[in-house]
Amino acid sequence: MPDNGENAAFIRKIYDRALTDGRCYPWLEHLSLKVGHRLSGSAGAEKAVNWAKATLDTLGLDSVWLQPVMVPRWERGDAEQVTVKGSKKYGDLRLNALALGGSVGTGQKGISGEVVEVNSWEELDKLNERGIRGKIVFYNRPMDPTRIRTFEAYGGAVDQRVVGASRAAKYGAVGVLVRSMGLAIDDFPHTGSLRYDSTYTLIPAAAISTLAAEKLSALLAEEGKTTVFMKMGCRTLPDVLSYNVIGEIRGAEHPEQVILVGGHLDSWDVGHGAHDDGAGCTQSMDVLRLLKSLGYRPRHTLRCVLFMNEENGLRGGRAYAEEADKKGEFHLVAIESDAGGFTPRGFHFDGDDAVIGRLFDAVKPYEALLAPYGLQFARGGSGADISPLKGQKGLLTGYLPDSQRYFDVHHTAADTFDKVNKRELELGAASMAALVYLLDAAGFGR
Amino acid sequence: MPDNGENAAFIRKIYDRALTDGRCYPWLEHLSLKVGHRLSGSAGAEKAVNWAKATLDTLGLDSVWLQPVMVPRWERGDAEQVTVKGSKKYGDLRLNALALGGSVGTGQKGISGEVVEVNSWEELDKLNERGIRGKIVFYNRPMDPTRIRTFEAYGGAVDQRVVGASRAAKYGAVGVLVRSMGLAIDDFPHTGSLRYDSTYTLIPAAAISTLAAEKLSALLAEEGKTTVFMKMGCRTLPDVLSYNVIGEIRGAEHPEQVILVGGHLDSWDVGHGAHDDGAGCTQSMDVLRLLKSLGYRPRHTLRCVLFMNEENGLRGGRAYAEEADKKGEFHLVAIESDAGGFTPRGFHFDGDDAVIGRLFDAVKPYEALLAPYGLQFARGGSGADISPLKGQKGLLTGYLPDSQRYFDVHHTAADTFDKVNKRELELGAASMAALVYLLDAAGFGR
Repeated sequence: MPDNGENAAFIRKIYDRALTDGRCYPWLEHLSLKVGHRLSGSAGAEKAVNWAKATLDTLGLDSVWLQPVMVPRWERGDAEQVTVKGSKKYGDLRLNALALGGSVGTGQKGISGEVVEVNSWEELDKLNERGIRGKIVFYNRPMDPTRIRTFEAYGGAVDQRVVGASRAAKYGAVGVLVRSMGLAIDDFPHTGSLRYDSTYTLIPAAAISTLAAEKLSALLAEEGKTTVFMKMGCRTLPDVLSYNVIGEIRGAEHPEQVILVGGHLDSWDVGHGAHDDGAGCTQSMDVLRLLKSLGYRPRHTLRCVLFMNEENGLRGGRAYAEEADKKGEFHLVAIESDAGGFTPRGFHFDGDDAVIGRLFDAVKPYEALLAPYGLQFARGGSGADISPLKGQKGLLTGYLPDSQRYFDVHHTAADTFDKVNKRELELGAASMAALVYLLDAAGFGR
Repeated sequence: MPDNGENAAFIRKIYDRALTDGRCYPWLEHLSLKVGHRLSGSAGAEKAVNWAKATLDTLGLDSVWLQPVMVPRWERGDAEQVTVKGSKKYGDLRLNALALGGSVGTGQKGISGEVVEVNSWEELDKLNERGIRGKIVFYNRPMDPTRIRTFEAYGGAVDQRVVGASRAAKYGAVGVLVRSMGLAIDDFPHTGSLRYDSTYTLIPAAAISTLAAEKLSALLAEEGKTTVFMKMGCRTLPDVLSYNVIGEIRGAEHPEQVILVGGHLDSWDVGHGAHDDGAGCTQSMDVLRLLKSLGYRPRHTLRCVLFMNEENGLRGGRAYAEEADKKGEFHLVAIESDAGGFTPRGFHFDGDDAVIGRLFDAVKPYEALLAPYGLQFARGGSGADISPLKGQKGLLTGYLPDSQRYFDVHHTAADTFDKVNKRELELGAASMAALVYLLDAAGFGR
């Protein structure tokens, strides 16, 4: 591979190009403002697929294609109503809410129930059927603000959203409210997917804003018995055909070995899906364009994959890995950007236990070349869409932007284009391109 | 000093407290929204001094006082008018502009002149009197977007703003327009101070937005001769009395040795001065409160200094150092936060050439304790207000938040409270408090 002087010089070129002639920002503007949000199976998702394919087609790559995948289709329906009824302090109080993705609706008449606040699974189990039957369970365990990495705070609270409905249904609850997965106290509800356990009745579940959660919790403390009315028109329709969007530059030496860079094209059905994950998609597209525009001829095949359905099914990621396995394609490296378009901090490296130690040792020496750009390397989780590739025993890599602001917008109506800073986005694209370049040139293999 | 286990545990407590019970964010909200901008000598600056003193008075420090300092008083007067006259493309075109701080006005009638675009000092000198006399010089050299640290890009362009007026006046220019010191192309002009060389006529100078600069440059290229009208009502009034605001906790072992943490209380006369430098002030105040609230008894005197007049005179910083020298106070460490309230990246360490090598060697081992919080240590510039303390041969330290977004708001009407993220601000206060704790406990001396 080239010596470190050549590597440093080429990395400098990548950053220079990204910061003076980047495309990810105008692409993200288009995806955010002209396409908009794009939940799997929606018209927005179809529009996004067409736009991404057409845009990749302009880049002069060796091939661009759509990979079919059947995806779930969940619709929010009419705006949710979640209302505290007849409180002493406020009378009726509407709480800002979003149905959780995948939730059943309430029917036209809605449901009512006394609210039980629950802050731990132990509390839930202790309340048991006697305390829960016929009621609405309100999960109010906050994300831990003292975690420096906000993803750890998210990981410590999101179980309430994912499995809370069925665990409450087990004890006879009629509905579930979940405190939004956010660290700021504000009035944006954060949606996100739930997972039902079909052993129990499927009950409706909604996220309420952190501000609404604080108010509801205070009401319960001040007034005791509190009733909430929920009405949600959401429903699940039959699966529909959608696509992963893929573009590649064939490798000159090892075309059968792939270095993948990607994000997910679907988003939740509010806001623009700008940080989650329009940023990762447009950065990944720009990685290929940047390297191509600099005349770089890769040794391995460089592939940009825009996965469909990360948010509520991971069908795109699974279908991609299945086909790759079937074709015997080896993914030397897969890099995912799905943590927002914020200022770069580094990369996390993951992989099968049998290989990750060796692979990380092989990668770690390159950290010094990226340190001037504010990047650090560490072992850690990579990304959902690329996780089904783990069995191939290649290197899985997560791009790590700064995480402090991510959960202010994640899965909310506030995840809009204006929240993305141009330079921060461009620096992310450059960082990913620089890593792709280094790993392609190094080419540590199976 | 305590062992690293104890150090790590106490640092963890500092961050926990800052992230769950911080004060800097509500303080900054008050300073931004209730006090507002606060240029030296203005009513806003007086209000800020009173608010800061009153707030420090509530913290149970050992002493809080005002240190008198005479400051310049410059007033913007009526809104600036900078207008391209009679262009073919636009007809008359108003350019968004702000007079540079310290600029003379144009008089009631304003001034008009043909515009000469200049992109380097060589170009200016080559144009000479023949090309410049009677004209308006338009400095349009942009900040370099390829610099990863935006302060370096600023440093490479700000000479145009600081000395451009007099260098153009030397050749007979009647006025100066400067492309704003910002990396984004938008319509916010960035003010900031200029420095006249009194050898030459004092001519009026204004910053125009980067968008206006791009338009003006395109007009000059397309239409050739282009005339601009400038009208500015700004003026300089006699110096007025103002104050540095200071609070301290006396050291138990070395009360005569000071560890200073500070920012500047004055701001430009647009926006809220939220990032510049309300953030640094309220973080510095919170450093003392955090340590006190955790029951920490410092060995050295911990002092929070809110300097007056960093923006257009540095009178506060100079007066502070003069009095310290006179009293024989030794500043073991001085830490300044004046780069915005963004996510923490590290600290820069500076000092007199005779001592900085040894001091940095003494500090560097503590980096490992702060690495889990995303901080790195490097040699580099510290801060303007503390620079007059260099002669004392203590350690000068600049707090380094991420710099990517700073020049989007610096010295503009966009530097408002809503641009500051609560967690990012709190993490900065915690980072500074952690460093103060470590250096106080370590106590490497003269």
